[in-house]
Amino acid sequence: MTVKIGLIGLGMIGRDHLKRFNDIITGAKVTAVCDINHAAADAIASEYNATAFYDAEAMINSDQVDAVFICSIGPAHKAQILAAFNAGKPVFCEKPLTPTADESREIIDAEVKAGKRLLQLGFMRRFDPGYQALKQVIDSGELGDIMLIHCAHRNPSVPESYTLEMAINDSATHEIDIVRYLLNENIISVRVDKPRKKTRRALPHLQDPLIVIFETESGVRVDDELFVNCHYGYDIRCEVIGENAIAALNEQQLIATRSLKGHAQHIAQSCMERFTTAYDREVQHFIDNIHSGKEMSGPSSWDGYVVALVCDAGLASLKDGEKHDVLIPQRPAVYR
Amino acid sequence: MTVKIGLIGLGMIGRDHLKRFNDIITGAKVTAVCDINHAAADAIASEYNATAFYDAEAMINSDQVDAVFICSIGPAHKAQILAAFNAGKPVFCEKPLTPTADESREIIDAEVKAGKRLLQLGFMRRFDPGYQALKQVIDSGELGDIMLIHCAHRNPSVPESYTLEMAINDSATHEIDIVRYLLNENIISVRVDKPRKKTRRALPHLQDPLIVIFETESGVRVDDELFVNCHYGYDIRCEVIGENAIAALNEQQLIATRSLKGHAQHIAQSCMERFTTAYDREVQHFIDNIHSGKEMSGPSSWDGYVVALVCDAGLASLKDGEKHDVLIPQRPAVYR
Amino acid sequence: MTVKIGLIGLGMIGRDHLKRFNDIITGAKVTAVCDINHAAADAIASEYNATAFYDAEAMINSDQVDAVFICSIGPAHKAQILAAFNAGKPVFCEKPLTPTADESREIIDAEVKAGKRLLQLGFMRRFDPGYQALKQVIDSGELGDIMLIHCAHRNPSVPESYTLEMAINDSATHEIDIVRYLLNENIISVRVDKPRKKTRRALPHLQDPLIVIFETESGVRVDDELFVNCHYGYDIRCEVIGENAIAALNEQQLIATRSLKGHAQHIAQSCMERFTTAYDREVQHFIDNIHSGKEMSGPSSWDGYVVALVCDAGLASLKDGEKHDVLIPQRPAVYR
Amino acid sequence: MTVKIGLIGLGMIGRDHLKRFNDIITGAKVTAVCDINHAAADAIASEYNATAFYDAEAMINSDQVDAVFICSIGPAHKAQILAAFNAGKPVFCEKPLTPTADESREIIDAEVKAGKRLLQLGFMRRFDPGYQALKQVIDSGELGDIMLIHCAHRNPSVPESYTLEMAINDSATHEIDIVRYLLNENIISVRVDKPRKKTRRALPHLQDPLIVIFETESGVRVDDELFVNCHYGYDIRCEVIGENAIAALNEQQLIATRSLKGHAQHIAQSCMERFTTAYDREVQHFIDNIHSGKEMSGPSSWDGYVVALVCDAGLASLKDGEKHDVLIPQRPAVYR
Repeated sequence: MTVKIGLIGLGMIGRDHLKRFNDIITGAKVTAVCDINHAAADAIASEYNATAFYDAEAMINSDQVDAVFICSIGPAHKAQILAAFNAGKPVFCEKPLTPTADESREIIDAEVKAGKRLLQLGFMRRFDPGYQALKQVIDSGELGDIMLIHCAHRNPSVPESYTLEMAINDSATHEIDIVRYLLNENIISVRVDKPRKKTRRALPHLQDPLIVIFETESGVRVDDELFVNCHYGYDIRCEVIGENAIAALNEQQLIATRSLKGHAQHIAQSCMERFTTAYDREVQHFIDNIHSGKEMSGPSSWDGYVVALVCDAGLASLKDGEKHDVLIPQRPAVYR
Repeated sequence: MTVKIGLIGLGMIGRDHLKRFNDIITGAKVTAVCDINHAAADAIASEYNATAFYDAEAMINSDQVDAVFICSIGPAHKAQILAAFNAGKPVFCEKPLTPTADESREIIDAEVKAGKRLLQLGFMRRFDPGYQALKQVIDSGELGDIMLIHCAHRNPSVPESYTLEMAINDSATHEIDIVRYLLNENIISVRVDKPRKKTRRALPHLQDPLIVIFETESGVRVDDELFVNCHYGYDIRCEVIGENAIAALNEQQLIATRSLKGHAQHIAQSCMERFTTAYDREVQHFIDNIHSGKEMSGPSSWDGYVVALVCDAGLASLKDGEKHDVLIPQRPAVYR
Repeated sequence: MTVKIGLIGLGMIGRDHLKRFNDIITGAKVTAVCDINHAAADAIASEYNATAFYDAEAMINSDQVDAVFICSIGPAHKAQILAAFNAGKPVFCEKPLTPTADESREIIDAEVKAGKRLLQLGFMRRFDPGYQALKQVIDSGELGDIMLIHCAHRNPSVPESYTLEMAINDSATHEIDIVRYLLNENIISVRVDKPRKKTRRALPHLQDPLIVIFETESGVRVDDELFVNCHYGYDIRCEVIGENAIAALNEQQLIATRSLKGHAQHIAQSCMERFTTAYDREVQHFIDNIHSGKEMSGPSSWDGYVVALVCDAGLASLKDGEKHDVLIPQRPAVYR
Repeated sequence: MTVKIGLIGLGMIGRDHLKRFNDIITGAKVTAVCDINHAAADAIASEYNATAFYDAEAMINSDQVDAVFICSIGPAHKAQILAAFNAGKPVFCEKPLTPTADESREIIDAEVKAGKRLLQLGFMRRFDPGYQALKQVIDSGELGDIMLIHCAHRNPSVPESYTLEMAINDSATHEIDIVRYLLNENIISVRVDKPRKKTRRALPHLQDPLIVIFETESGVRVDDELFVNCHYGYDIRCEVIGENAIAALNEQQLIATRSLKGHAQHIAQSCMERFTTAYDREVQHFIDNIHSGKEMSGPSSWDGYVVALVCDAGLASLKDGEKHDVLIPQRPAVYR
């Protein structure tokens, strides 16, 4: 059986996933694509031998589609997700789940009502071999109790459309999710530090770099350097400090060169390059789950909701520089 | 469609592949297992819900089997491969293709007669992300013309059954194949150096370590340290020296720790651990090729035959310490 | 000419310097040692063929002594330094200059009155090849403007005598000084963050780890992880983030091993081991300055005074968790 | 006391040492310089406030000189060394001791007759912190018995004056000496392998790279890649393989950068840069020995003689490609 995928949203990440389905993923085929830009939908449908849709709901309900793959902009997510739930079709949704925590809550409610998970969220880092190795060494107990985590999230540059808030909403979300994954616990407070010294490479409306400090339930202190115009690469760092020992993401390359550059290892230049294996694996995981008939697994709507709650606190702190608490409701049983 | 796999030979590597089909591989299922040890065949067939066979030919010709996966001992390979060819079923065969080059030649002749490739050989290193990155940087021209390659092939230890000749036939085969892959050219001579100093960890019938020196068609000099009782790990090294720069396999871990051991990265302890991704990928490649209806690709019978010719020269040099030339016939068109 | 050294204080660091004078330093000899513990003074004087003193002032004024080397406890420093100034003898003083900034001010005043520097302070990190390489790359402009510095100061453990305040007064002092050295600017505020999660290896009166956040005049944000019971080693980290690139202290070993520990580099186990070259160099620098007849150079009383001012703010923040400003007077011309 | 140095030979290495005496070395001063090029001698004497000599013997016998520092060309060494011995002045001599083993023998005989060592030879690598750390881990027994050593000796390029033989006589000499130092045993045979593939960066009269294979008394096999037009840096590698574990020279930098070059560590670009600490230390060692009134220590005439014997065998192998044995006479007692 080949899972027939309907893919919504033909922007950068949408096209990247389309290529992935074509080249890498086994057991699935994109049979329908949807974009409000008719020309884009037509062109890509033709290129990939799929049917073009301009209306998401029509595509979702089409019998050409077994599963829905959402790469549209955040504000469109909620309606598309709920439509897919209604159509009884499994959903993969790129992050963020929804722009606000309140909207995410509606999706949670729908899954709770269904009594099972219906969606996999695109927090791809959980499928990254580096982070998985980090989690493995934490879980092994080799490090002892964890006390501190130092993170850095560096982009070579960001487009003009990148707003001040996106440092929290778009960039820090990944660390928020991955810290919860690594430690199996929630974040309970956020504080944003704005260093006075800013890079002149950033557009004037930005504050770059930023330091965000999280505290988890058990008291672990996490600092996250968000530096989205770092110039030199897409560079994700994570160092976990335990009572016995420390573990950290290392360089992510398997070869090194000796040249006029010195003894060097390449640093990724984009999210797509750094997390290519993670993207491949998260999508294959979604497809394999469908094949096996199992309930959705991996990052959930609940993860998306909780991350949105933490972001809300972060945005408040971005304004006033104070520490803001995060109140997280009881986790429903379907997300055990 | 799920490809029905008949797997022959339930030794260590056979069982490893069986687990792999069960846990990792998509699009295939082991439906039949075969071993001359009836008890082993029965027990494993029962565990994996497959049919037990004790006779390879019977299993190969059974309609429970779409494709044949050969993990038996080397001397059994030729007959099983030819039987599968006759049955029109695609073959995956663990290396060596056959114990001698002459036997391999018969398989070549059968594929030439068929006018297409029918077999994928288990030189898994070609699917290793590290070696692939090394090949990519060589092919990019960044290193300039290649002049030297330094390899090391280190095992923590070997069983009592490991013979002196296996350093060539079993261990060096991997470097022989991968050098051909990296450089796109053949090896034309072999010399084996036997250092006077041997590890006391090796059994008395062995000469460990050994240094094997290959020369390729274009004149590249390759040295390969074979050290199969190195005690500390399964450690595969490869450094490629070009006119402009050097590239080398780096540590293969994505995390590092700071502990009482110092700043450390784990070294794999077995072939299975070091090349787990490569094994997964080579098998998935085989299955994907079947699904797509394409001709077999990846390492071929021809590769197995040529490696066997190089090994013959290596074994001669192991005896007399002299340089031995390798005569490689014209490559048939099916292996272009 | 051999400089005759009178060394005061025969504790751990005093004995370490004594051994250094004996084994490494050229152009100087310890001719007199002084300790209020008569037995210790006698024993060591006998071992090193020096004269024993029990009274610092007597030794300072003895004509057996050309220069004074102070390794006594902090509260004793001021009187000994001023006595040496009066005797017209150059002084090397271990840090801290004095326990409080006010006392340090008296020493500053004495040097200002003398119109020249008379003392070298024991901030040995400025002589460390690693930090010097870091300063060189910062000064080269290769990193661009600096915006952030991430430090870690980790000890395997601390003795029972180590107090909560010493995390600031004793440990963080080194980062306070070195940040000023690296950036050529002062620190203007301090905030101490106390993570809720503490290591169980620390004695109950400690808060370990701590995070101290400094801001410099130009707005650089520096965070310093102080973790003095980290168990695994004496590990000093420093990462400097600029607009163009990042530079960091690397592992400080020149060899690496492959063993059952993996691919590993040793981490120092003590301050003495980590900074052995720095200690050797700072002392040789002091002696060479005397030989050359030049004014004292290297870390000064002023550096000691300013670090004491920053520590005062840090201690205040350790109590209330708030950010505290540091007011630094105009630097006198002798410390240009 | 300041040792008055008479330095002979104002070429590249001579001037480098002159600068070293001026900037780094304590306890010595170059009071006389000698070169057959009168203009060079006059200019440099004037610059460094020393007396110019054009005749080595005159300078050696001048009472302006306490110790003789020989940086002249190899063929001049023997006469200058013997003159200094006659004058009763300690000698530092740059390598090679003499161009041929026979000439070296005369120097040995003179020292044997004197009943003590009178000379320190310029094998500076023995003073390199990296090699010293390597020796320390070998001597600790941590690696177990040593069986193999892999070396590489890479220069970015060589001048037109560099001959084919200098790969042995000038470059390999360093590995010959350091292997003896690391293992405390002699080399008993040499074989030179000439790879067919050569770098096009080398001048036509060279064979670059070359592989030289040494065997030591106990049977350790050492291979040395000599690649003197490697383009990218002055890069010295050494990996020591023991029964239990492996140790190797690591990158020799204490900082690393993250930039558009990737994660990189600088590689030295010249011998002077790579071994600057070693040069400083070997010269200070020579001066300190004079100050202490001790017999000369460090690399000896005997080391120079034995290395010359190994080179003779290497040059023979360079011609015929065969393995050549090295016959080493009994070591006289003065070189115990």
